Amino acid sequence: MTQSFHAIVPAGGAGTRLWPLSRRGEPKFLHDLTGTGRTLLQATVDRLAPLADGVVVVTGERHVEAVAAQLPTVPPANLLVEPSPRDSMAAIGLAAAVLTRRHPGEDIVVGSFAADHVITDQAAFAAAVRTAVATAAEDYVVTLGIRASEPSTAFGYIHVGAALAAGAHQVRSFTEKPDAETAAEYVAAGDYRWNAGMFVVRAQVLLDHLARLQPTLAQGLARIADAWDAPERDEVLSRVWPGLTRIAIDHAIAEPVAAEGGVAVVPTDLDWDDVGDWRSLAHLIDPGEDGVRVLGESDAVLALDSGGALAVPASGRRVVLLGVPDAVVVDTPDALLVTTAAHAQQVKAVVDRLTGEGGALI
Amino acid sequence: MTQSFHAIVPAGGAGTRLWPLSRRGEPKFLHDLTGTGRTLLQATVDRLAPLADGVVVVTGERHVEAVAAQLPTVPPANLLVEPSPRDSMAAIGLAAAVLTRRHPGEDIVVGSFAADHVITDQAAFAAAVRTAVATAAEDYVVTLGIRASEPSTAFGYIHVGAALAAGAHQVRSFTEKPDAETAAEYVAAGDYRWNAGMFVVRAQVLLDHLARLQPTLAQGLARIADAWDAPERDEVLSRVWPGLTRIAIDHAIAEPVAAEGGVAVVPTDLDWDDVGDWRSLAHLIDPGEDGVRVLGESDAVLALDSGGALAVPASGRRVVLLGVPDAVVVDTPDALLVTTAAHAQQVKAVVDRLTGEGGALI
Repeated sequence: MTQSFHAIVPAGGAGTRLWPLSRRGEPKFLHDLTGTGRTLLQATVDRLAPLADGVVVVTGERHVEAVAAQLPTVPPANLLVEPSPRDSMAAIGLAAAVLTRRHPGEDIVVGSFAADHVITDQAAFAAAVRTAVATAAEDYVVTLGIRASEPSTAFGYIHVGAALAAGAHQVRSFTEKPDAETAAEYVAAGDYRWNAGMFVVRAQVLLDHLARLQPTLAQGLARIADAWDAPERDEVLSRVWPGLTRIAIDHAIAEPVAAEGGVAVVPTDLDWDDVGDWRSLAHLIDPGEDGVRVLGESDAVLALDSGGALAVPASGRRVVLLGVPDAVVVDTPDALLVTTAAHAQQVKAVVDRLTGEGGALI
Repeated sequence: MTQSFHAIVPAGGAGTRLWPLSRRGEPKFLHDLTGTGRTLLQATVDRLAPLADGVVVVTGERHVEAVAAQLPTVPPANLLVEPSPRDSMAAIGLAAAVLTRRHPGEDIVVGSFAADHVITDQAAFAAAVRTAVATAAEDYVVTLGIRASEPSTAFGYIHVGAALAAGAHQVRSFTEKPDAETAAEYVAAGDYRWNAGMFVVRAQVLLDHLARLQPTLAQGLARIADAWDAPERDEVLSRVWPGLTRIAIDHAIAEPVAAEGGVAVVPTDLDWDDVGDWRSLAHLIDPGEDGVRVLGESDAVLALDSGGALAVPASGRRVVLLGVPDAVVVDTPDALLVTTAAHAQQVKAVVDRLTGEGGALI
């Protein structure tokens, strides 16, 4: 049987902690957040295209035009448009179900990779994905386990178990974002890894788990996938999609299957970041001679006595920092944020406040 | 002889420490910096009009249109336009010389008052000016001496001497902005007052001092004043003005005449501020419920955990402060400044840097 590997890139989620650069209408995956000239989405596809037989992007109606414009090499048929957000299980399950129908008689392995993460070490990533694909052939749901370089409370953790063949280990369990004490214990223990939310699995194994664990969702997705490349797609979508169960793939598949011993982890030391907030983003940008990290046109920023600050000049205006080494300054055409790296996680509270006011700026 | 009192308002100076709100093209006196609905220039004229028989404003060609628009009650003939800046002695001397020619046979007292200072206690101001006018009748050059409520290093000081009649004292000497130690000594000594740069004097006394101490400047101003209300004004101005000595009234008149015993001071407790920088401005604005001082539309600012900050939303954009209680954020359509009150005096260094770059934003 022909074997193939297809990458699935769910491109959704606003990234509210990166407000005001990231908006519902222009979420973080559409931005070049590392100053490389490529958006996070483009970099994700750049990373996957050499490794996969195809890349499928699942996105919302609101973003499909921008996604298509950013990804001219992805065939239009590989942009799957969701009528409304139904969380990651529906997005990934839909893509897997459509792929099995498009490639009958092939043994398809799928891998899901978020559109808004940053990975700088392509060789290590490629090696880890290849190991994951080989491990998936053994009918495991396979995830990548990132070396926990610090006791972060911003990530979930994977408890790593016994070694399997081919550089993979059994997963004992997944744990949610821990408190600081627990995170420190995990890092000290040495057998915990960060969960980057990347899953590699045979499409049929995924769909079989889904049919068993979330049967109504599986049935809905099957009905939609049957109609996807047919004239009745819109009719079936509009009828079935709104009723699909909203659940993350972690809860629907990864956690229960791990409890059954069916999940493997490929430990990897690659540099990975989910760019979850401004503090996280700052780590990805090299400081200039003045010690200031600038995302965008560095000539737009004049900084005095502000080494350590992060500036995002995205409005075309001149940004001047004077004596504010802790500042995070994000300057967009209609909104300005002045905060500090220490308050990065609280930006969500700002967005919540603005939402309560009507939300024109979110 | 008929007696009259005329206020002279030199309206020049960019106020570079209030960049980016204050610019060469739109200096601080043209702005409402206290949220009262009146610009500093308008408030200055509002304050003087009830006390004086006339108000004369001396300004530059670049600003005369804006000044005229802001001051519809000042007759056009009372807006004296300088072809180029020649410091305060030329501006005040010109106004005094023109006034003596326009009011022959009158005993004119003139008072000069900067266009960009803030005084909130009108009754105390009026009382001090009346005392100063009465003292000026005795041929003194009279200045107001503001109670030194703290050992500020941002102001010059007046060393107060023996009491004269009518609530005035002799001035022993003027001192430049002192260092912190000296300022503390002055405040502890009790016989020092802040010099607010307000001078009240008989026009003829002023012109006589000038003729004696700065004869070439006096002659040049006399020639220009002779031509001011005549067809040859422009011709004489273009020939004589560029050669006028550039000197401040403090150095030309106040200091040397004080050394001769010819300067008096009227001590006053009025609230006065020269709004010299952002820290100074912050003191003039009442904080909102969130502890943030907003100059402008307070609805434009959303602040969390930032009590004590100063925000100037002057671009129409939303300004969000998160966890920055020390911040000074000045948001204008083409430039943004993020600094702290402690760095207020260093804003001039920013402007110098921008000047070196070509100065499009200054």
